[in-house]
Amino acid sequence: MTSSHATLPWDRVGSAGVVPERSASFENVELSSGRVLPKVDVVYETVGELSLERDNAILLFHALSGDAHVGGWREQDAREQGWTPEDGPAWSPEGASFGDPDAAPATAIRPGWWDPMVGPGKAFDTDRYFVICANVIGGCSGTTGPSSIDPTTGREYGQSFPIVTIEDMVDVQVRLLDLLGIEKLLAVAGGSMGGMQALAWARRYPERTRTCLPIATTWRLPAQAIAFNEVGRTAILGDPQFKGGDYYESGQPRHGLAVARMIGHITYLSDESMHAKFGRRLRDRDELAFEFVTEFEVESYLAYQGKRFTERFDANTYLYMTKAMDYFDLATGAPGLPEALSGTPARFLVLSFSSDWLFPTYQSLQLVDALRSVDAEVTFAEIESPYGHDAFLLEPEQQHRFIQPFLDRALEEARGRGVTP
Amino acid sequence: MTSSHATLPWDRVGSAGVVPERSASFENVELSSGRVLPKVDVVYETVGELSLERDNAILLFHALSGDAHVGGWREQDAREQGWTPEDGPAWSPEGASFGDPDAAPATAIRPGWWDPMVGPGKAFDTDRYFVICANVIGGCSGTTGPSSIDPTTGREYGQSFPIVTIEDMVDVQVRLLDLLGIEKLLAVAGGSMGGMQALAWARRYPERTRTCLPIATTWRLPAQAIAFNEVGRTAILGDPQFKGGDYYESGQPRHGLAVARMIGHITYLSDESMHAKFGRRLRDRDELAFEFVTEFEVESYLAYQGKRFTERFDANTYLYMTKAMDYFDLATGAPGLPEALSGTPARFLVLSFSSDWLFPTYQSLQLVDALRSVDAEVTFAEIESPYGHDAFLLEPEQQHRFIQPFLDRALEEARGRGVTP
Repeated sequence: MTSSHATLPWDRVGSAGVVPERSASFENVELSSGRVLPKVDVVYETVGELSLERDNAILLFHALSGDAHVGGWREQDAREQGWTPEDGPAWSPEGASFGDPDAAPATAIRPGWWDPMVGPGKAFDTDRYFVICANVIGGCSGTTGPSSIDPTTGREYGQSFPIVTIEDMVDVQVRLLDLLGIEKLLAVAGGSMGGMQALAWARRYPERTRTCLPIATTWRLPAQAIAFNEVGRTAILGDPQFKGGDYYESGQPRHGLAVARMIGHITYLSDESMHAKFGRRLRDRDELAFEFVTEFEVESYLAYQGKRFTERFDANTYLYMTKAMDYFDLATGAPGLPEALSGTPARFLVLSFSSDWLFPTYQSLQLVDALRSVDAEVTFAEIESPYGHDAFLLEPEQQHRFIQPFLDRALEEARGRGVTP
Repeated sequence: MTSSHATLPWDRVGSAGVVPERSASFENVELSSGRVLPKVDVVYETVGELSLERDNAILLFHALSGDAHVGGWREQDAREQGWTPEDGPAWSPEGASFGDPDAAPATAIRPGWWDPMVGPGKAFDTDRYFVICANVIGGCSGTTGPSSIDPTTGREYGQSFPIVTIEDMVDVQVRLLDLLGIEKLLAVAGGSMGGMQALAWARRYPERTRTCLPIATTWRLPAQAIAFNEVGRTAILGDPQFKGGDYYESGQPRHGLAVARMIGHITYLSDESMHAKFGRRLRDRDELAFEFVTEFEVESYLAYQGKRFTERFDANTYLYMTKAMDYFDLATGAPGLPEALSGTPARFLVLSFSSDWLFPTYQSLQLVDALRSVDAEVTFAEIESPYGHDAFLLEPEQQHRFIQPFLDRALEEARGRGVTP
């Protein structure tokens, strides 16, 4: 982030500090499949303060491997670094620094997955906005999913967990909003699968958000993306450790899950960024090995990413998340995309990235065209970036430039001070 | 191929007919790794007639999953369809038709992998040229590879087979040329890994070909392609059936190999062609299944491709071929690519395809720039095609347009009738 300091007021940009994990429960959750879950626990996080008028709430949606922890640090992580509540939400731009201001920053704590975008002075400025992020249904980070205990059997759901859709994800989160007493959001936003949820929200609950920010996403999964997901699922389902999804005692199908993650990782990067990052460099050797060993840096990187993922993510959830994405088609049930979006009162900010080949810009443009054809107000930008699909995680400054004024204007309007052109 | 009839004289284009499989053996084959194989058998095919002057020979190189069978039909296939040698090389443009001309064409026979490009009147016109194609070392279609018997143990080599390189592949084939008594080729050509061999030939044996046609290829594997290969290898190596490569009695690691092939297949197609071919259509159903079953057509296609591949291809060979490609860097040992190509007397025809994202056009352009910088004569074209990397197999007419006059001129020059500009 060093390069960003010159272009944005990063001296005023900071961490959201220590953010607690919260939870809620909902009963009788009806799903797109027709099945009903008797009880769904939802883990979520809020950052910032809800205004008295309750007009500054922003709901952020996470992507496939994300969770509710969107900004700042989790309390548990912070305590392990020596933080106590008396320290308050201390932070430094370089890392966490609790108590002794001269102490080296604690770098072992895990920041939120969109921490560069969520915090004081950041794109989603928690000095101004009340940011909410919940782990999705089907997930494996606190919210009920296949690794949760099925109350009717006392054992993990596994593959008996119902298939969930992007629409199911937002339906659960609208109940969370009801619980929080927030009738209308200032914005819904997310990247990748998170962007799909933002779009589904705008279609299903058009009166419950002022704006919608679908980022690095698509209005429906194209065949190529379904194909990559299917190969990942095939790797998991065919791993002998998978055991029909009932692997919670014996250990999960690490090999299949690692392969799936490796495939995913390639699709999140770009040819250009991989070349810049790894090229054909060898790792820990000067010459080719002439053996089947990990020798190129890119191989080592992928193997590490695959392995690390299996230590924190549930293989069943991987199956459910990819299936939810495959099923996503914002136009489902409507004659076409324009009809599906017709009459939406929300204003849209659509962002794509030049090197994202998983969800390329043309898919965002199809969405923009459909929105304009039904007279929705939409701002679109393709952000130049070499980072591929992952750019939504790696380009906070460029996104800041578009998001900050867009949200600023939305809040002004919400408070009756906006100028409608 | 129906669409092609209007643009090329396909009424004069025909099959090469029945082509026998040939074989040769070479002793003491030295490899890039430093290892020496005491004996290498090579299976090859020739189509057309070698001229008395021996000046019309073209060596075609196959890609990862190809073999020596490049054009026409194999005799065994033809006999199973009722063909006898007395029938002669009968063919019809629509398929094989032996004996009774009113009989339905036999479609079960397997044409050569580049059959639309190799035959009478085709791009590699077997009425004019003598076409040679050999299965590469390390392969699994007759030439010595990991599934061959190691004479020193009496068992399959498996992983004890040495790692081979693209350079090793061409070194074996130059010995085949010596055996055939062909001092100088008219052309070396191939797509994908075949194109790499063509380039390696031009660098290693510059005096032994007049022209070089690298198609849909790259002068060095970029990090992204290495990454895809590594994921495929990881799937195979981690399959419990792999057993360190000694699976020839117990059955090969079908699951891992199928996953590897599925990944490969996605990279051979384009987003555009997959969308056109499959879209989001469901197979054999009208509604989403809400189960982990194969339901989208693209899933069914990939599963089929993966499974079929395991019935004909050896998992160890898949490992060796991908490793050979990963190792390929035409500039190895030279300060840069121009120096590696400096002084080459060959003329080049470089073809890339607009939608090939595995080996994109920019990689061919790097090669073209390097060739031009050392005053090599090079013709380059990016062929517009929606078919991705596979376009080199699926666009015979467009390639014909460039290859036919290029070879025509080369042959004229070889015979002293060419006009050097």
